Amino acid sequence: MRGPEISSARLLDWVADLGRIGALPGGGVCRLALTDTDRAGRDWLVAQMEALGLTVSIDAIGNIWGLRKGLVEGAPVMMGSHIDTVATGGLYDGALGVLAGLEVIAALNEAGITTHTPLAVAAFTNEEGARFAPDMMGSGVYMGALDREEMLATVATDGSAVFGEELDRIGYHGGDTPVTPAAYLELHIEQGPVLEREGVRVGAVTGVQGISWTEYTIKGQSNHAGTTPMALRHDAGVVAAKIALAAHEIAADLGPPQVATVGVFELSPALVNVVPEKARLTVDLRNTDNELLKQAEARLQSAAEDAATAHGCTLARRSLARFDPVAFAPQVIDRVEAAATARQLSVKRMPSGAGHDAQMFAPACPTAMIFVPSKDGLSHNINEHTEAQDLVAGAQVLLDVVLDLAGGKS
Amino acid sequence: MRGPEISSARLLDWVADLGRIGALPGGGVCRLALTDTDRAGRDWLVAQMEALGLTVSIDAIGNIWGLRKGLVEGAPVMMGSHIDTVATGGLYDGALGVLAGLEVIAALNEAGITTHTPLAVAAFTNEEGARFAPDMMGSGVYMGALDREEMLATVATDGSAVFGEELDRIGYHGGDTPVTPAAYLELHIEQGPVLEREGVRVGAVTGVQGISWTEYTIKGQSNHAGTTPMALRHDAGVVAAKIALAAHEIAADLGPPQVATVGVFELSPALVNVVPEKARLTVDLRNTDNELLKQAEARLQSAAEDAATAHGCTLARRSLARFDPVAFAPQVIDRVEAAATARQLSVKRMPSGAGHDAQMFAPACPTAMIFVPSKDGLSHNINEHTEAQDLVAGAQVLLDVVLDLAGGKS
Repeated sequence: MRGPEISSARLLDWVADLGRIGALPGGGVCRLALTDTDRAGRDWLVAQMEALGLTVSIDAIGNIWGLRKGLVEGAPVMMGSHIDTVATGGLYDGALGVLAGLEVIAALNEAGITTHTPLAVAAFTNEEGARFAPDMMGSGVYMGALDREEMLATVATDGSAVFGEELDRIGYHGGDTPVTPAAYLELHIEQGPVLEREGVRVGAVTGVQGISWTEYTIKGQSNHAGTTPMALRHDAGVVAAKIALAAHEIAADLGPPQVATVGVFELSPALVNVVPEKARLTVDLRNTDNELLKQAEARLQSAAEDAATAHGCTLARRSLARFDPVAFAPQVIDRVEAAATARQLSVKRMPSGAGHDAQMFAPACPTAMIFVPSKDGLSHNINEHTEAQDLVAGAQVLLDVVLDLAGGKS
Repeated sequence: MRGPEISSARLLDWVADLGRIGALPGGGVCRLALTDTDRAGRDWLVAQMEALGLTVSIDAIGNIWGLRKGLVEGAPVMMGSHIDTVATGGLYDGALGVLAGLEVIAALNEAGITTHTPLAVAAFTNEEGARFAPDMMGSGVYMGALDREEMLATVATDGSAVFGEELDRIGYHGGDTPVTPAAYLELHIEQGPVLEREGVRVGAVTGVQGISWTEYTIKGQSNHAGTTPMALRHDAGVVAAKIALAAHEIAADLGPPQVATVGVFELSPALVNVVPEKARLTVDLRNTDNELLKQAEARLQSAAEDAATAHGCTLARRSLARFDPVAFAPQVIDRVEAAATARQLSVKRMPSGAGHDAQMFAPACPTAMIFVPSKDGLSHNINEHTEAQDLVAGAQVLLDVVLDLAGGKS
């Protein structure tokens, strides 16, 4: 007896139903936070929760959660994610974690199971940060990492709206008080290529990589590309190119899971025949080990200073973002791994390279995530895709781990 | 007896007089080709030529030249340059060569010298190419390297005017027939830092560097900076950075006069946390030796292909410009060197890194250039500056070489 089973038909119907709200003509969806389509998605979600018998709460930042009573009172085991998307989002990023939570409740209802500990399904406001920065806003406020009043005053990235006013407008400025869960679980698509590439069905996520974003600005001297001998130049662009390659060499040298990305690289005045006076580049470094991440940062800085000195340029460094790695709870990771194995699903321990609502819960309660494969590693893209069998497998592992954590038998 | 002397007062007055036409509030001048200020500069120049007794001609592309009879008939020894400027130009780029030509005529008039060969002072239309491309348009048409009708049909870079119509409008669409000179000499500011840095007064220019402009476009794959392991990336930006550094390594390896400049370097989508899908960069390679320039181009292409292959990216190459090096006439270079030495001016043989009208004459007649120092190597800049004593020294060398070539005694 392996316990209750997920209904693949019901889960896939829900994915399709929510996916129709904000559907884009060419596929994918646009449900930017606090827009009318986000409201429509929220209304749909609340209706589903109520139909499943959950008690719906909404807090002052617009987070929605539905509670299912357990045999005892107390903090619930929470399943959560988000239903907002980027402007050209897919059907699964965020939505899967919320809809699988609904499906877990539905499967338990159908099997007549009441868990020992209460359960909750949550959808957090503005995880994407696409319309209002920062991202993970709802879960950050929920767990106290972000200031609620400050977030309510946030102006949209296009300057067109204020967060709190939009929240009022769509009718989701609630007053319920968040509760710290007994445990937190989030099913999510990987948004990377690893599971698909290795043919593994389930990722037991060990934590979220630490992130270090640095902007370097190099100032040299603008000179004529023909009349200035190499030895008399102060070429800001060469310094920038050396920093970019140093970042990649550091990542190669430290090995996985260290990654390094130079996403922005600009020269000024940007003319074919003028030695660049100024260069600006960004370096995104990530590692699950904070000591290794610090080592990568220090080595990058040293390489940047050496390059600037060698070319007689000045170097300015600005930190754009810095988050320590988040480690998930070993006992929950173990249970994810065990649950997948018990269902004969291949499983791999892996870090998350992207940020998720789960990281806001990790400091306060036992937390972990379950990943399922993303076709071609694509996400934040209308072609984002996860095979139906993988959606179902992930939801089944979620159900099994929730039952394990909350205590309950059929 | 060292022959006739330049009048520094007269030369500097002329520099100041022409510099007032199109003067910018903060210094420098703007006499873009075929504008009203260019016309005012031309009118002033023609008046000076006529006052010096020169016979003024204007051809169908607007070139102006003033002829001074010699003891015999025939092709003149020509001194020339241009009086158009870039939008934020200096007082010397181009103007010096024309005004020094006037001063040579004035000094000869004053000394009562008639040369054996006739002399000419020329100002060529649109050398800068700032308002209408290409540059060196007037001298190119004069010597048959560019097609006159095609040039007359050129539309301004801002789309606002047609070359031929502007030439008519300012009244410089002449009908005189260009004559190939017996020899061509051009005094010009260096527009680079070499003479000043080495404390040398005069450059005996050996030729103009060959120029190779290449644009590389690299296509990789856009990926999430956190979720995509290094080994699974196709990072167009890394390929571009490797090409940029390869260009500099090739220049370092070949040594002077090889130079390499990466002036444009763009990534797309240019987001901090997205692996660049596309990169575009330009490489400007220059050398006086065409075989070495070809070698540099071949090595760059090979490095670019290797980098693209290593990262699984595609590479597209587009040649934006390719000019063979121009060699000036050894016997004229020798005379420039000898004249400077005779005047106790330190002199250095050097290539020109920038293009000049002189290169249009080099294939057809004995040609050379004389360089004088540019403060901080600045040009195409309102702070362009050459010390008065250097302006005078350059004009004196021009006078001495012209007398040497044209034959004439006081």
